[in-house]
Amino acid sequence: MAGLYDGAVQELIDELGRLPGIGPKGAQRIAFYILDQDKADVEALAAALVKVKERVHFCEVCGNITESTKCAICSDPRRLDSVICVVEESKDIVAIERTREYRGKYHVLGGSINPIQGVGPEDLRIRELLQRLGDTNVTEVILAMDPNVEGEATAAYLVRMLTPLGITISRLASGLPMGGDLEYADEATLARAFEGRHMISTPLN
Amino acid sequence: MAGLYDGAVQELIDELGRLPGIGPKGAQRIAFYILDQDKADVEALAAALVKVKERVHFCEVCGNITESTKCAICSDPRRLDSVICVVEESKDIVAIERTREYRGKYHVLGGSINPIQGVGPEDLRIRELLQRLGDTNVTEVILAMDPNVEGEATAAYLVRMLTPLGITISRLASGLPMGGDLEYADEATLARAFEGRHMISTPLN
Repeated sequence: MAGLYDGAVQELIDELGRLPGIGPKGAQRIAFYILDQDKADVEALAAALVKVKERVHFCEVCGNITESTKCAICSDPRRLDSVICVVEESKDIVAIERTREYRGKYHVLGGSINPIQGVGPEDLRIRELLQRLGDTNVTEVILAMDPNVEGEATAAYLVRMLTPLGITISRLASGLPMGGDLEYADEATLARAFEGRHMISTPLN
Repeated sequence: MAGLYDGAVQELIDELGRLPGIGPKGAQRIAFYILDQDKADVEALAAALVKVKERVHFCEVCGNITESTKCAICSDPRRLDSVICVVEESKDIVAIERTREYRGKYHVLGGSINPIQGVGPEDLRIRELLQRLGDTNVTEVILAMDPNVEGEATAAYLVRMLTPLGITISRLASGLPMGGDLEYADEATLARAFEGRHMISTPLN
C-alpha cells in the first residue's frame, strides 16, 4: 500500500525493509516504533549506524573486524601462534569463541569460492594466508568453512594450496547436530555422519 | 557474548536489539550486513531515521501521522465528512484503508485506556473528538478499537461520552476471522461469534 503513508514514513519503511530478516510488516512496525520514540534515542541509533561504518575496519593480520589495526584476538598474547583456524566471515569467529574450546588464532577469508556469484579464490584473503604461513611458525591450519557446496570448494582449494607447505591441515567434522533427531536429518548430513563414524571397539579375533 | 565485538559493532547490535521484532541474532545479522554495505547506503538509512522524526507529526484534525498540517485523508474532498471512524493508532487506518470499504474520515486516539500502564481517558485525543463532533455534521461514529480488554474499555467509555450527543454509534463486529478454523478459535472469539450471530431465516409458524 505505497502512497498511504506520507513521504518520510514510507521512505523509512523502504529503507528498513532492505535489511536482512525484516519484511514489510516488520519494517512498518519498526517505523511506527521510531515515530513513538524520543528524538534523542532515534539519533543515537542513526549515529551508531554511521559510526560503525566510520570506525570499524579489518584487522591487518587476520581480517577480523576491529577498531584498531590489530583485532583483540591477534593482540592477545595468551592465544597460540601455532594454530590458525580459517573461517569465511568474522561472525564465524564469534560462534567458535562461544565454544571456549579453541585457543589459537584465526584467518578470515571474507567469503567462499562461489562461481555463480563471481567470487573466485583471488577475491578471498588467501594470498594473505599464504604469506602469514610463510612468515610464522604455524603447525596446524584448521579449515572451518561452512559445510555447504561453496565451503567445500573453498576447503578443497585451500588443501591444494597448503599441502606443499608441509603443515598439518584439518577440517571441522560434519555429522548429526547435537540434540538433533536422526529421523529428521537430511540425507547429506546422515551420509557424512556414516563416513565420519568413529570406531568404538574392534574385536581382536 | 558482549565484549567479543569491538565497541562500535556491539553498540550497533545493542541499538538494533531494542527495535521491536529484532532479537539478538537478528541484530547481529543486521550489524554485519551494515558492515558490508556502502557507506552511502548506511548514511541513507541513518538519514531516513532522523528525517522521519523531524518531518512527521500529527494531523491537526484527526491525529493521523502526516508531514503537512492536515493528513491526506482529512484533505481529501472525496471522503465523507458525515462518518468518523475512531481508531487507536495511525497504523489501524492503514489496515482499514486496505479493505477499500470505508469512505469516511478518521480520528486517532493515540492509544487505549490502560490503567496498568497509567493511560487514562485524559491521555487520549477524546477531548479533540468531542470538539470535532460539536463543530461538524457527523451522523455516525464507528468505534474501531482493538477487540481486547483495553479496546473494549475505551469503546465503553466513548459510548458513555457520545450517547448524549444523539449521534449513531457503531462498533466493528467481533467473531470468527475469515479463512480461520472454528476448531482453533479461542473461547472468547467463539463466544462473540455466537453473541453476534445473524438470523438467516425465521420460520413463520
